[in-house]
Amino acid sequence: MNIIQGGVCAPKGFQASGVHCGVRKSRTKRDLALIYSERKAAAAAVYTSNLVKGAPLLVTKKHLADGMAQAIICNSGNANTCNADGPAVAEEMCRLAGAALSIPTEDVLVASTGVIGQRLDIAPIAAGIPGLVAGLSLDSSPAAEAIMTTDTAMKQIAVEFEIGGVPCRMGGMAKGSGMIHPNLATMLVFITTDCAIDSAMVQKALSRDVKGTFNMISVDGDTSTNDMVTVLANGMAGNSPITGEGPDFDVFMQALNTVTVWLCRSIAADGEGATKLLECRVTGAKDEATAKTAAKGVICSSLLKAAMFGADANWGRVLCAIGYSGADVDVNQIGVSFASRAGTVEVCRDGAGVDFSEEEAKKVLSEKEINILITLHEGEGSATAWGCDLTYDYVKINGDYRS
Amino acid sequence: MNIIQGGVCAPKGFQASGVHCGVRKSRTKRDLALIYSERKAAAAAVYTSNLVKGAPLLVTKKHLADGMAQAIICNSGNANTCNADGPAVAEEMCRLAGAALSIPTEDVLVASTGVIGQRLDIAPIAAGIPGLVAGLSLDSSPAAEAIMTTDTAMKQIAVEFEIGGVPCRMGGMAKGSGMIHPNLATMLVFITTDCAIDSAMVQKALSRDVKGTFNMISVDGDTSTNDMVTVLANGMAGNSPITGEGPDFDVFMQALNTVTVWLCRSIAADGEGATKLLECRVTGAKDEATAKTAAKGVICSSLLKAAMFGADANWGRVLCAIGYSGADVDVNQIGVSFASRAGTVEVCRDGAGVDFSEEEAKKVLSEKEINILITLHEGEGSATAWGCDLTYDYVKINGDYRS
Repeated sequence: MNIIQGGVCAPKGFQASGVHCGVRKSRTKRDLALIYSERKAAAAAVYTSNLVKGAPLLVTKKHLADGMAQAIICNSGNANTCNADGPAVAEEMCRLAGAALSIPTEDVLVASTGVIGQRLDIAPIAAGIPGLVAGLSLDSSPAAEAIMTTDTAMKQIAVEFEIGGVPCRMGGMAKGSGMIHPNLATMLVFITTDCAIDSAMVQKALSRDVKGTFNMISVDGDTSTNDMVTVLANGMAGNSPITGEGPDFDVFMQALNTVTVWLCRSIAADGEGATKLLECRVTGAKDEATAKTAAKGVICSSLLKAAMFGADANWGRVLCAIGYSGADVDVNQIGVSFASRAGTVEVCRDGAGVDFSEEEAKKVLSEKEINILITLHEGEGSATAWGCDLTYDYVKINGDYRS
Repeated sequence: MNIIQGGVCAPKGFQASGVHCGVRKSRTKRDLALIYSERKAAAAAVYTSNLVKGAPLLVTKKHLADGMAQAIICNSGNANTCNADGPAVAEEMCRLAGAALSIPTEDVLVASTGVIGQRLDIAPIAAGIPGLVAGLSLDSSPAAEAIMTTDTAMKQIAVEFEIGGVPCRMGGMAKGSGMIHPNLATMLVFITTDCAIDSAMVQKALSRDVKGTFNMISVDGDTSTNDMVTVLANGMAGNSPITGEGPDFDVFMQALNTVTVWLCRSIAADGEGATKLLECRVTGAKDEATAKTAAKGVICSSLLKAAMFGADANWGRVLCAIGYSGADVDVNQIGVSFASRAGTVEVCRDGAGVDFSEEEAKKVLSEKEINILITLHEGEGSATAWGCDLTYDYVKINGDYRS
């Protein structure tokens, strides 16, 4: 498997487009994106666990009832959530895009991101769709840019892999930043592949993968109402279709995991206001569930996140977070080290502090990517969680998000 | 019942003291506190639910096995947690204080607050105890000051009430600020009363009360390792002792609740970096547990907390937080209003936005105390939770806490 240039248009038969239509006040920021497959694709999705679900999710779920789709339309600037007419507007977005693409409304999926509880006006979207469709091309960047909200960087990746000797590709894009604390799925992630695989197996792969990827990142502990991850698999690579588990499915899972882990890290690193990516790796837990609970507890601790911002090796906050995380661990066996490109510093062994150089720790924690390594000495369970530091800018961004 | 001047020394027979002994580097900040009762008192406590428990809690729990105590010693600047010799140091603090007060070691309770995982040197404490004991007086302020860490204000209250026609008093002090997200108990709270009540009933009253008070506040979602609430009841008011439930116990519960709610509000308002007290009141839930879960979810949302800092009526974040809180609610029936001394603004009805004046909302949210009023229209359950806004200063305080 190789990482290659590009994003969702890297697999055969996919095009994308992104325009400014006017959902956002800004006159330049793109706010409407389209991903289109020449052939109808096997499709799967996972959605937020929030009880309050954005209208686009409800419509997407309905359109995915047959496991097939051919296009995804997405706007940023307004989440179309908690609006009485939300489902009707989301459905109309699909109808208009479908008409312009000459495909059935039911083959269009829809997503929205932005402020909750403000009516989404269909007019600018309706006016923007002709240009959006006309702009379809093999360049995925305008679409990746159009789904951004407070993101500071586009998040795109593509990989190449082989199924039965046939080269296949997979590409993905994501929108992250704030309100990132997924439980079932996450923010907006669109993945495309030309690999032939039936929709049941795409759904199985995706549902299995997110447990260790998108469900293991947290920027701020807030689970959004609009989180969604979708995969479109159009089969145009021409491999013998994957219809069950086995070596081919394993390769597909591996490709998917490469794409999703990369997107997870990108989303965490670009968390609102973040200056650092935090990766917490727990090993030696009595089981995987325990490792996950502990890793997520650490990555979610506001106190630890603020300490990481300050490059302060305040490891007591790591122990504290494990202690309240709900993970069943023997606190007297916990070991903690901080690591980065600048080195590794052991700070805690058997649940108590060890002498370490504050100067060295400061150097390790001043890097852009920090590893928090936790060993529990109770078994074979392990897990990784991703997050970011808590900074002044997080507060600034969220103190006047709507202004 | 009346609120009166003073704190833990308002009830008969209690004295307190606070000195600088040198646990903290600062040469002036008091860091060692003592509360002493002339008579041995019925005593009760609740402790943090964190699996990592501070050594002082373990020792206090042991000393409370007989339900009696006569003094509490507490240092700030070091939590004495995650230290191999922690229990021995905590026990030695009790022994030294007991010796100086001529009471058994087992009648002294101990608490510590501050950084985790740095050895607590007994030497400055041992050197400070004679002056601490000599300084005992009816002024509770030096003790209330000595337990502060990043608190910006002392938190003390006293009330007067009658049991069977006999005037009784109750006083309390608290240390709050950061790492505030109690589950079973909370930060450090010391409550004294001269009311005669046996230790089983004190424990019952306290355990019942914290569920709706200290368990319902959150500053930052981090549950400390050292949270503890204790009550000493020395019986010196001379009322007929409370030994079971009934009208007298109800009056005692009411007095306790007045003290604890006041301390909760003070702790939340003085959360690290906070500029505003947030009080979230949920009514119409199908039961009390649902109301509590929803109220706590809202008060814990970083996004909402940041919006409140910016006086931004971003009510979608309230719905979002209810949605992921785990509370079983019908999202299409949720109503939300923001209120303060400046007025009330309805922002959401039946789960969807209503038109409101942004200008008026800004005025309401610019006050120091904000009420978030949520109605669920599903039953009679209600609950209140307290929190604070998320500000630049929270990040600043926690970015270099140890420096």
